[in-house]
Amino acid sequence: MPGEFDFIEWLCTQHRASDLVAVPQGDDLAVLNWPAGELLLVGVDQVLDGVHFDAKIHDAQSIGRKVMNRNLSDCAAVACLPAAAVVAAALPLGAGLDYAKELYLGMREAGEKCGCVIVGGDTGSWPGKLALSVTILGRSGGVGPITRKGARAGDGIYVTGPLGGSILGRHMTFEPRVQLARTLAQTGQITAMIDLSDGLSRDLGHICRQSGVGAVIDAEKVPIHADAKALSLRDGRDALNHALSDGEDYELLFTASDELSNAQGVVRVGTITQESGIWLTRGAERKRLEAVGWQHAM
Amino acid sequence: MPGEFDFIEWLCTQHRASDLVAVPQGDDLAVLNWPAGELLLVGVDQVLDGVHFDAKIHDAQSIGRKVMNRNLSDCAAVACLPAAAVVAAALPLGAGLDYAKELYLGMREAGEKCGCVIVGGDTGSWPGKLALSVTILGRSGGVGPITRKGARAGDGIYVTGPLGGSILGRHMTFEPRVQLARTLAQTGQITAMIDLSDGLSRDLGHICRQSGVGAVIDAEKVPIHADAKALSLRDGRDALNHALSDGEDYELLFTASDELSNAQGVVRVGTITQESGIWLTRGAERKRLEAVGWQHAM
Repeated sequence: MPGEFDFIEWLCTQHRASDLVAVPQGDDLAVLNWPAGELLLVGVDQVLDGVHFDAKIHDAQSIGRKVMNRNLSDCAAVACLPAAAVVAAALPLGAGLDYAKELYLGMREAGEKCGCVIVGGDTGSWPGKLALSVTILGRSGGVGPITRKGARAGDGIYVTGPLGGSILGRHMTFEPRVQLARTLAQTGQITAMIDLSDGLSRDLGHICRQSGVGAVIDAEKVPIHADAKALSLRDGRDALNHALSDGEDYELLFTASDELSNAQGVVRVGTITQESGIWLTRGAERKRLEAVGWQHAM
Repeated sequence: MPGEFDFIEWLCTQHRASDLVAVPQGDDLAVLNWPAGELLLVGVDQVLDGVHFDAKIHDAQSIGRKVMNRNLSDCAAVACLPAAAVVAAALPLGAGLDYAKELYLGMREAGEKCGCVIVGGDTGSWPGKLALSVTILGRSGGVGPITRKGARAGDGIYVTGPLGGSILGRHMTFEPRVQLARTLAQTGQITAMIDLSDGLSRDLGHICRQSGVGAVIDAEKVPIHADAKALSLRDGRDALNHALSDGEDYELLFTASDELSNAQGVVRVGTITQESGIWLTRGAERKRLEAVGWQHAM
């Protein structure tokens, strides 16, 4: 029966050259030459069978791409350049060497599109379901990281694409907005940013709470994805409701001090306010927008 | 029911100050000021319920300490200084907020002993068992990383403590040899090093293969832990056999170009040879040492 060392041996043939890597994987830790003067951004994001994907439905490469893309989307959220990643994989007993390779190839493909190399990992088998986590290292690359804290009253609120209904499939196939985030951040006008993983209402709540502000969203401006409309026909829930509260859009939600145009690939959906609370307006009508997006129970 | 955001809110009250951290957790990624001129060492190691611990027996703080200590032991293996860590936790549904806090406190306590701060993480709940992974960032701190590749014929082979039988409890309670590794590396005589996680016979195999050398181990010199003897009484397997092949000792195994003394907290167990293969000698008797340590099946 093949074991983890067969996998590690195969991995050692899969190296991609990188200026960053001083000692490639195969040792206890990978050794990187971190560029002087560059901030190091680091975070981790995992995908779990039955929560973020379904191993009975989704193939290994898609699962691998998703976990890497979630991390790349975190890089987009702070507008940094993805640089390197390490992976922890808990594989169901008997998943097999080929399955592990497919997971890796999916992760590598997604990473390479954004300049991110996989430099290490830990693989284990267990009598449990597939759990896959990626830790990503990003570098500032001349652009100060955008946090969630800088939104100010009067700032416009923007999203980078139509929202809602990603559960119909987009949650596995989205493209992280790494390049767009850099372009936006380079304008110097972005005051706060987050990627939409928990749903607009909840993620906007994170920005507002951390910035100490409130927000008004114009219901008629929120771009509704065709998937949200399709889902609405099925479940009878309003399509706007899906757009406001479904998770895993992986578009960017940000605030800007100056007006940006649609030509920049963004849509203005509202305005930051001094007054706290998040409100949804439609003409003269105004109601509180509840944060009903996704969170893990504990 | 408390959710992940209650946990994140609590975590934000638990920050420890660190010169390294420019923007503390609470954002999509943590932002670190990486010291100029320092190599960045990075790796990930996970613990899985039913493989590395048993959640029915071991308490949450012990599990948290173990996963952090495994990573600190990886830092010891390359003789770097632990600096920062991020954590991915897949919690069984209903594990509860207090359980998550205990895991965190165990990790933090172990990290702090070695100067390592937790700077971020991802927590999810799922209908599966507990899986916990830590990614560790280490810095070279003026000492070049020790790899597995530098062993040369004639080098002495050393271990830092008695081996075997860790399954009786030490696998949960070991202390990573971070400080000793630094002291050893500073002598300039250490040519290759690894931490003993898979068992001496297998881990020595890693060093020999990557260095392109062989080794002879003197059976009478191998320090046998009392746990290995106790286990031998139970299962009838030779205590030496336990010392040579049990996993999770988390002592260091290294090679040195000059003779080191026991006063340095190390025991010489053999010699690196030009001839490939790993041999066990007892007086005039010589037999091949099979790599029978632990590996995950796939």
